[in-house]
Amino acid sequence: MPVPIRGLPSLGTALLSGRNLSLQDNSQDYPHPTPPIYADEQTMLQAVEDLRAHLGNDAVSVDQGDIESHGYSEWSTSNSTIRPIAVITPTCTEDVSFIAKLCTKYRIPMIPYGAGSSVEGNVSTPYSGLSIDLSQMNKIVDFHPEDMDVVVEAGVNWVELNREIKSSGLFLPVDPSPTAQIGGMVATNCSGTNAMRYGTMKDWVMNLTVVLADGSVIQTRRRPRKTSAGYNLNGIFTGSEGTLGIVTQITLKLAVIPTHFGVATTTFLSVKDAAGAGTAMIRQGIPLAALELMDDTQMEVINRTGGIAGKLLPEKPTLFLRFSGSERAVQESITQVRDICKGFGSNSFQIATSEKEMENLWSARKQALWAMLAVRPEGTQIWSTDVAVPISRIAEIIDYSKKQAAQLGLFSSVLGHVGDGNFHQAVMYNPDKIGEAIAVTACLNDIIDKALEMDGTVSGEHGIGLGKKACLAKELGSGTIGVMRSLKRGLDPHWILNPGKIFDF
Amino acid sequence: MPVPIRGLPSLGTALLSGRNLSLQDNSQDYPHPTPPIYADEQTMLQAVEDLRAHLGNDAVSVDQGDIESHGYSEWSTSNSTIRPIAVITPTCTEDVSFIAKLCTKYRIPMIPYGAGSSVEGNVSTPYSGLSIDLSQMNKIVDFHPEDMDVVVEAGVNWVELNREIKSSGLFLPVDPSPTAQIGGMVATNCSGTNAMRYGTMKDWVMNLTVVLADGSVIQTRRRPRKTSAGYNLNGIFTGSEGTLGIVTQITLKLAVIPTHFGVATTTFLSVKDAAGAGTAMIRQGIPLAALELMDDTQMEVINRTGGIAGKLLPEKPTLFLRFSGSERAVQESITQVRDICKGFGSNSFQIATSEKEMENLWSARKQALWAMLAVRPEGTQIWSTDVAVPISRIAEIIDYSKKQAAQLGLFSSVLGHVGDGNFHQAVMYNPDKIGEAIAVTACLNDIIDKALEMDGTVSGEHGIGLGKKACLAKELGSGTIGVMRSLKRGLDPHWILNPGKIFDF
Repeated sequence: MPVPIRGLPSLGTALLSGRNLSLQDNSQDYPHPTPPIYADEQTMLQAVEDLRAHLGNDAVSVDQGDIESHGYSEWSTSNSTIRPIAVITPTCTEDVSFIAKLCTKYRIPMIPYGAGSSVEGNVSTPYSGLSIDLSQMNKIVDFHPEDMDVVVEAGVNWVELNREIKSSGLFLPVDPSPTAQIGGMVATNCSGTNAMRYGTMKDWVMNLTVVLADGSVIQTRRRPRKTSAGYNLNGIFTGSEGTLGIVTQITLKLAVIPTHFGVATTTFLSVKDAAGAGTAMIRQGIPLAALELMDDTQMEVINRTGGIAGKLLPEKPTLFLRFSGSERAVQESITQVRDICKGFGSNSFQIATSEKEMENLWSARKQALWAMLAVRPEGTQIWSTDVAVPISRIAEIIDYSKKQAAQLGLFSSVLGHVGDGNFHQAVMYNPDKIGEAIAVTACLNDIIDKALEMDGTVSGEHGIGLGKKACLAKELGSGTIGVMRSLKRGLDPHWILNPGKIFDF
Repeated sequence: MPVPIRGLPSLGTALLSGRNLSLQDNSQDYPHPTPPIYADEQTMLQAVEDLRAHLGNDAVSVDQGDIESHGYSEWSTSNSTIRPIAVITPTCTEDVSFIAKLCTKYRIPMIPYGAGSSVEGNVSTPYSGLSIDLSQMNKIVDFHPEDMDVVVEAGVNWVELNREIKSSGLFLPVDPSPTAQIGGMVATNCSGTNAMRYGTMKDWVMNLTVVLADGSVIQTRRRPRKTSAGYNLNGIFTGSEGTLGIVTQITLKLAVIPTHFGVATTTFLSVKDAAGAGTAMIRQGIPLAALELMDDTQMEVINRTGGIAGKLLPEKPTLFLRFSGSERAVQESITQVRDICKGFGSNSFQIATSEKEMENLWSARKQALWAMLAVRPEGTQIWSTDVAVPISRIAEIIDYSKKQAAQLGLFSSVLGHVGDGNFHQAVMYNPDKIGEAIAVTACLNDIIDKALEMDGTVSGEHGIGLGKKACLAKELGSGTIGVMRSLKRGLDPHWILNPGKIFDF
């Protein structure tokens, strides 16, 4: 009989993310039962063989490359040194249900995996277990253009989906990283540049097919666009990062593609002015489609990677504005916005004149993270944090963050979804230089603390994952985390669903 | 030592709502522990005295009138014959916390009560206990116009709130019954005519202060407009009808009041044509503010109660359309909508020319239920059901429902939030005539079944309460109800929070 190993936090967590060490987790005083006990390596390997027998060889990989690529992410600011025992690739909900039954039987952690583009260690495996790669579940199951909804498997990529359904005049308006898959988008309640107009992922979920910890399968709802029937299970599974169940199929609401678009850019003397102009637009209720800010450093990075279609842009704090609606409505909004920008010292209002130019300008914004990755020096890593604050404070916190980051003497930039009071601070640092890593950690923790002081949140759109558990505890306190724990215990009594994420047992 | 009474469903439920008898609750096969045991009458009365000592005389009423008005509602299609033992009127969150601690100690049901305008027996007391009337908690606690949010106590009325903050140019766009209080609006995840444009209550909740079953108090979040930090507790408490906790304070997002409005009405030869025109508008993405349908009977009722500002309207199926935005955008939408309506046989497009006329037209729509109550014959009651279906099916289900109801030979009308695929069927009947009550029950159950057959929901905006538990079980099945039960047990182990609502233990 193998000796069970108690599920203790992996040291790897702390090694790569100082955040877990520097903040006090005040949720520990909430009473909790004995920590879960997971299967040992031998038992896990036995389960892998059971899976191979049932799902076939193609569905099971113990290849070191696969294990590494599923257990470690260079996109992520938090990682664990522990790797999954195997990568399992189910092809249908029944496969996932079979896996869950086995994992319940043997007490094996299950970590759902999609595109792997999350950035807070959300798919890492600090207690080992099985990485369940849903990317092969990539079928559009049912499309109801007349009802403006679509049923997809978790592994469908959103860009691909929008391409497939484009001719119907409908689209899914949530636009995170172009690599993202719907399942992961649900898991982190992601957003993107369109969130200001269209909301976040939770607003587009009509129903979910979820495999529970014990392998049973539920559907949260049917297909009404509006309901007040029973608990909002869509709301609780969306954003739960695979800790309450594994989402295998999703029915998504769709929106009508607007008939006209407009894109404009304008520069300011300071990020404070740029953010101030953005806040004024929101407060006046101008129907913008998106309102994004990039600072001087980020604009410099874009120029270093070739500018926009070969054209270099001014290296000044810049607002990227998108408009959509009827031709008249777009024109009207552009006029109003230009006036507001003037009031904040902008004198360089550029309107894209062709569809190609619009696309180029917007792709410059969407490619910002890649541009950063492309210019970073050998050996450095990018630590990007994401916070959101009440909208009137966005200018102030961006200003504060830039000043704090400047003191590091490292390359750092700011990029903001100003319309949601949400921004990203990215810093390039060398994780092997302990002093540098400690300084970056302290700086970013300080920015997070500032966001909390302003009544904000420690994560606007990336989730908590492995990296921000202590921050979440600080944001919400032990009582609120205690409620989350109760909900988790009710649905995952053996704590096998993505353990070590959001909060600890 | 008093003998405890096992919490069995009250007969009163079945007496006034045949629905509970006629559908099979398939959630009973889910394994569950022993039913909760509640305090007997003597113990409850002891607790009432404890409350009187702690909260003062004014906060505690055992007056029969108060008990009756809190335990029975003529608005509601479902009622219980059991009444609360007392009505408690807390004035702050700490009071509610004290009540909850006492109720946990003695195992006394707690039923939160606001305006009492819910219609599915949501505030009824089938296991007796304390009716906790939050209407005295009616302060606007904090208003942040610069962040576009407001902090209110649960007992604040939404019309009053919008009046108070109007000069800031902001408003809460959710518009249910004018009597509703914010706490109740959260509890049922209500909506109204604005839902098509602005969504439902869950979309406007920024954070909640919740008193849990054991009396502990949590705040779900801080004040970011966007977050992906931890489980979406706003999502699970909103719409949980007081079965998971008592919401005492709410921070609400606010929207900017549009600069221009427009209201138009147009009649059709059939409700099918009217609903068809509505669906076409949505599918074309025309930015309507509201899209409401009233059938010929409902229009007749309006005329019988004096018409609109004394003017009688055509007694034909009518669409009520509202537009908002810039002057141009409103004009543009009206032109587009008029063309669509022509295609569905409408030749009577009336545009309100003054603000007063707009207000009158819209108030006719908002007063529809009162108008029905005003014309009903002595001894009759109105049974109004509310279902929602995928939008392409709305014309079909309204048509079906009207035909079914016509066979009853009773006065019945249809009123729809067409833009959400949601409609209300109201039937006047005499509950003392057993045959009539049975026929109405069968007819409305049939409409609910039809909605489910179309992949819809048994409640678009009224919640489940006491009246639709069996319908919900039919809609979602035992597995999904089982998940809801797990969540409830985690937060309310003694099942004292509004027991007998949404689903049974």
